[in-house]
Amino acid sequence: MSNEKDGSVVIVTEEICQKVVDRASAFTAVEQVFGAMAKGDAYNFPVIREAIGYADALYGFKSGFDRVGGSLGLKSGGYWPGNAEKGLTNHQSTVFLFDPDTGRLQALVGGNYLTAVRTAASSSVSIAHLARKDAKVLGMVGAGHQSAFQLRAAAEQRDFERVVAWNPHPDMLPKLGEVAKDLGLDFEAVSQEELGAQADVIITITSAFEPLLMADWIKPGTHIACMGTDTKGKQEVDAALLARATVFTDEIAQSISIGEAQHAVGQGLIAEGDITPIGAVINGDHKGRTSEDEITLFDGTGVGLQDLAVASVAAKLARERGMAQTVML
Amino acid sequence: MSNEKDGSVVIVTEEICQKVVDRASAFTAVEQVFGAMAKGDAYNFPVIREAIGYADALYGFKSGFDRVGGSLGLKSGGYWPGNAEKGLTNHQSTVFLFDPDTGRLQALVGGNYLTAVRTAASSSVSIAHLARKDAKVLGMVGAGHQSAFQLRAAAEQRDFERVVAWNPHPDMLPKLGEVAKDLGLDFEAVSQEELGAQADVIITITSAFEPLLMADWIKPGTHIACMGTDTKGKQEVDAALLARATVFTDEIAQSISIGEAQHAVGQGLIAEGDITPIGAVINGDHKGRTSEDEITLFDGTGVGLQDLAVASVAAKLARERGMAQTVML
Repeated sequence: MSNEKDGSVVIVTEEICQKVVDRASAFTAVEQVFGAMAKGDAYNFPVIREAIGYADALYGFKSGFDRVGGSLGLKSGGYWPGNAEKGLTNHQSTVFLFDPDTGRLQALVGGNYLTAVRTAASSSVSIAHLARKDAKVLGMVGAGHQSAFQLRAAAEQRDFERVVAWNPHPDMLPKLGEVAKDLGLDFEAVSQEELGAQADVIITITSAFEPLLMADWIKPGTHIACMGTDTKGKQEVDAALLARATVFTDEIAQSISIGEAQHAVGQGLIAEGDITPIGAVINGDHKGRTSEDEITLFDGTGVGLQDLAVASVAAKLARERGMAQTVML
Repeated sequence: MSNEKDGSVVIVTEEICQKVVDRASAFTAVEQVFGAMAKGDAYNFPVIREAIGYADALYGFKSGFDRVGGSLGLKSGGYWPGNAEKGLTNHQSTVFLFDPDTGRLQALVGGNYLTAVRTAASSSVSIAHLARKDAKVLGMVGAGHQSAFQLRAAAEQRDFERVVAWNPHPDMLPKLGEVAKDLGLDFEAVSQEELGAQADVIITITSAFEPLLMADWIKPGTHIACMGTDTKGKQEVDAALLARATVFTDEIAQSISIGEAQHAVGQGLIAEGDITPIGAVINGDHKGRTSEDEITLFDGTGVGLQDLAVASVAAKLARERGMAQTVML
């Protein structure tokens, strides 16, 4: 995508994003950008995140530059807790893409659907590269808005037969059960301990501030993708589990400061050097899982480059298919 | 401006900005937001500024929130030194405004013209509040793209009779002379020392990395607006001049880190506590100039809230006059 000549800006709505960005293209975009990050070809800028003291909102930006993929820009937005009662999504995101050759705005892309898709693609990439090939049981911890995206993406990575699930509010589980059914998978609501005992792959996607899974509950050979922790203080799993597991992440700087690893590192259970960027596995520079008994853990913190990668796909496809409106700026 | 109901986004092009935002409305918007900053009703978020290692570009964001003015958002963009030979402006800026009640994108506003106008409004606000009423001679240090905006805005604040000017490249001065002529003002190219001896008000608007005016050259009673220094290492005037002058700024945090005051503070000539936010003068909480002999110096570093303030005016007026295109996101 290049439009430096006419200065036009592509507008890609939420609706068009849903039509053009599928799980496969999100997977490829996220896998590529994780690889580029590990090679030093792409990097994220510092994150801005502000409690603005108005409408209880959290607002900010994640941004970065991928020199190989050619993505430069930011995802702007935040969390407005009063939106739901206005009929709007509480999380509001918009992605802005710039031409790295000239700095001109290239595309304006709705970011709400893409945020869910890129987060699902992230855990999905970790499963593809780190889970045992013979994994049969998928454990889901969390049954909120994003869990369906996570489940659908994960289901494509292994020949799962069954889903076991737990959620702090059990009444939300049947909705996730319908997604499993739609995918032809058995579904069972279980206790947290039972989930650990049965699952070969576990995804945690909650807003928890305390461990929901203890280290002892997890069986050897499990792969766990912790996708919910993106802020200081949040926590989904026992810090001791990170000491027992081989730990991978999207970005080490975020993993140790605002990701799941913040607790294990803070308690001295693991060090920064014990964490491997998943991009190194993607690039073949780290062997990933080395035995059938190893527990692998992916700390998915969510980086701006993921947003730019999927938004670039959305803008490119919308343009190619003649679905994008363009405006002059 | 409120459009949370239909989710539409207003597009305000560079051309429309030039039609709807005049010097008077930019002056009012910048004066108000400086006042709001000093009251604590508006604040700037941390600045992101990255040398991206591609096309020699500097890229980043300035952002903030004005709870009284209702402006939330960012100016994104940077400096692409290779643009000129492509027929594009080297500085590229776009402003994004969000609805503080819902977080939804409200407006997309071209930022190139607005950046020049808000910077000129800033020095102009400082002249209005700090220069002697009987100022007759305006000194211009710098004759680049922004100098004409500065000169036009300054000329409206006092009954100037004459402009004296200096620029590192003297061949650029005649163009600024034409602007002075257009304003009915005499114009003379002078040496830096002569400029200091003659001018009652001085604007510096360069990209200098060393002092262009020495403290001894400035006569008592002068007001100086230093508008060029916005990065570590840049400098337009002798650090000793800040010790001799009463120093004002748009934002103290920027003034001492990336503004003109960085050198005087770094050398221990003045302290952070010696610098007054100009908003305090606007709000009547600081008396500003207290004698005809006092030298006043305004360190205009440029803050995101200025960009949001003038972009909000652009979006509001474009909407009211039916000139703005709207798109759905």
